[in-house]
Amino acid sequence: MFTILFGGASYEHEISIVSAIALKKVLKSPLGFVFLDAEGRFWQIEAEHMRSDYFADGGYKKATRLRLTEGGFEKPGLLGARKLEVGTIVNLVHGAQGEDGTIPSLLDFHRIPYIGPRKEASCVSFNKWLTKLYAEGCGVATLEWQLLRSDGPRELTLDLPVIVKPLRLGSSIGVSVVREPRQLDYALDVAFEFDDEVLIEPFVEGIEEYNVAGCRAGESWIFGRIEKPAKKEFLDFEQKYLDFARTEEVAEAEIDESLKEALKESFRKLYAHTFEGALIRCDFFVASGEIYVNEINPIPGSMANYLFDDFEGVLKRLAGHLPRPRAITPDYAYIRQVQSAKGPKLR
Amino acid sequence: MFTILFGGASYEHEISIVSAIALKKVLKSPLGFVFLDAEGRFWQIEAEHMRSDYFADGGYKKATRLRLTEGGFEKPGLLGARKLEVGTIVNLVHGAQGEDGTIPSLLDFHRIPYIGPRKEASCVSFNKWLTKLYAEGCGVATLEWQLLRSDGPRELTLDLPVIVKPLRLGSSIGVSVVREPRQLDYALDVAFEFDDEVLIEPFVEGIEEYNVAGCRAGESWIFGRIEKPAKKEFLDFEQKYLDFARTEEVAEAEIDESLKEALKESFRKLYAHTFEGALIRCDFFVASGEIYVNEINPIPGSMANYLFDDFEGVLKRLAGHLPRPRAITPDYAYIRQVQSAKGPKLR
Repeated sequence: MFTILFGGASYEHEISIVSAIALKKVLKSPLGFVFLDAEGRFWQIEAEHMRSDYFADGGYKKATRLRLTEGGFEKPGLLGARKLEVGTIVNLVHGAQGEDGTIPSLLDFHRIPYIGPRKEASCVSFNKWLTKLYAEGCGVATLEWQLLRSDGPRELTLDLPVIVKPLRLGSSIGVSVVREPRQLDYALDVAFEFDDEVLIEPFVEGIEEYNVAGCRAGESWIFGRIEKPAKKEFLDFEQKYLDFARTEEVAEAEIDESLKEALKESFRKLYAHTFEGALIRCDFFVASGEIYVNEINPIPGSMANYLFDDFEGVLKRLAGHLPRPRAITPDYAYIRQVQSAKGPKLR
Repeated sequence: MFTILFGGASYEHEISIVSAIALKKVLKSPLGFVFLDAEGRFWQIEAEHMRSDYFADGGYKKATRLRLTEGGFEKPGLLGARKLEVGTIVNLVHGAQGEDGTIPSLLDFHRIPYIGPRKEASCVSFNKWLTKLYAEGCGVATLEWQLLRSDGPRELTLDLPVIVKPLRLGSSIGVSVVREPRQLDYALDVAFEFDDEVLIEPFVEGIEEYNVAGCRAGESWIFGRIEKPAKKEFLDFEQKYLDFARTEEVAEAEIDESLKEALKESFRKLYAHTFEGALIRCDFFVASGEIYVNEINPIPGSMANYLFDDFEGVLKRLAGHLPRPRAITPDYAYIRQVQSAKGPKLR
């Protein structure tokens, strides 16, 4: 059994709802739904209530409130709390909380099995600057970049055109292309609305883009069809929003086998062991035969279900190979040893 | 008011207890104590019970159990939960959970103010490989390195002697110096006991080491006295253990002002905005006039209290300048807009 966890206090709260609704359409197994509202409360959502207006209109506030507990969620009650059966959680909280390490921490702390990025994976994919450092450490190229802070000088060292992005947001929120110097200030103002730091990269006209989704289940790599996203300058929020609702299967990009293999090899390097437990989508640029990673989506919209032949089967295989944290039980050997030697010192 | 949070399910559980006891000695303000046991339960500890045997002998299990709640902790009871006044939490959970981003996530999620590293800071300091990528990204040098995985080949590319470290542990646990080829396997076996990945670096005989502790409170940098730690090959766990109990003031290293300033400048680059809210200690090597960061301790043992003239004042200033997360309230504007345009599609 899977339980979809969605919502969250983030700019991507709404697309997470849309994404969860899309997933409900494509999964046939028994599914549970847990909604995290912007105040940090968890709610058990009945399948028939999985409509976007139920959340927009606050209908969910009449649902059963849940509390995190060891191994899952529980419903508090006057006669004691009752455990809710959740199976494996699918973390579908996009953006802050879901992708910044918060939800993974809550789930790990309560020893709840989940599909989604772990803490380190979240950290290196959520911050676009760390993504670059990480990718280069893995041997995958990225475009050159510049970082600006809201309280620092606004001096551009890259040549125009450039693309300006809040450092820690996905879904194209706050992103602008700057073609002329006079556009820079406004683009920065917009981006700084969402983060105190922005990343600036060259905007390469007509660069080829390919999206590769996949995961590793045990020793096996599973890849979806490689997608060449429709040519647009970049997806604005509204387009991306609809993008999160996708359920229709997509045909594979018509590219030669050697490029496909090279893209998959870059994916494998980035996924490495860091992204174990997650189904991710890496978005690559290709220019002059060179592959650059643009971003790593550790929780792609509707889990990129439309790229897989047997999406449900992929989730099940992944669920069978989740990373297991080491169990650490202190034996107090050092305290006892040091105490017997220097007892009073530690009191 | 400060509340010391300590313990945790980690190899550093015991030194966290020792560290908390040391902090109790040096702080005069009203203090609370919350113990996180290895099973993930929180306990309210009375000041008079802050002795190491109280934890080693399981005495804490008779204390009041606490539950995380919005803004702090609460004591569950038959007549409803009572809120516990905690003021600012001092995260003193060393190692896993405390320094890997878990505790910061729990505290952020429940909107509890705390001194300690945030999620990103935890992530880049907990994983020694990410520390290197991060440091280089900040313009601070590190020693060269090699990564090995437990399931990969054991081929050394660095010249001996080398130092072998589990990738994600502090406090010298599992660390060995390898001087002869025959020692490598055993050193790796030991390190792999603690992590599936190990970092190997050159071991430079007699390299100078300096520890710099500090923080930024608003616009002001606060530095402790720079310490030249006693010459030892490296601190083994038992020595380091006692190190966490330190409360006696330390004299500043006798080095010239230009080196001091250079060390502080490297510290500032590393602290940047990433470590806001934390009092950290950066351990540097100096060789041939070049500064290399060895590690970043985002929660140093007993908070490196022994390096500060007015440690309590430093904590108070830091508590007055904690980073504030952005409040994000979804307005469901997109859902409403998209619904009115394509209602059925999102249902």
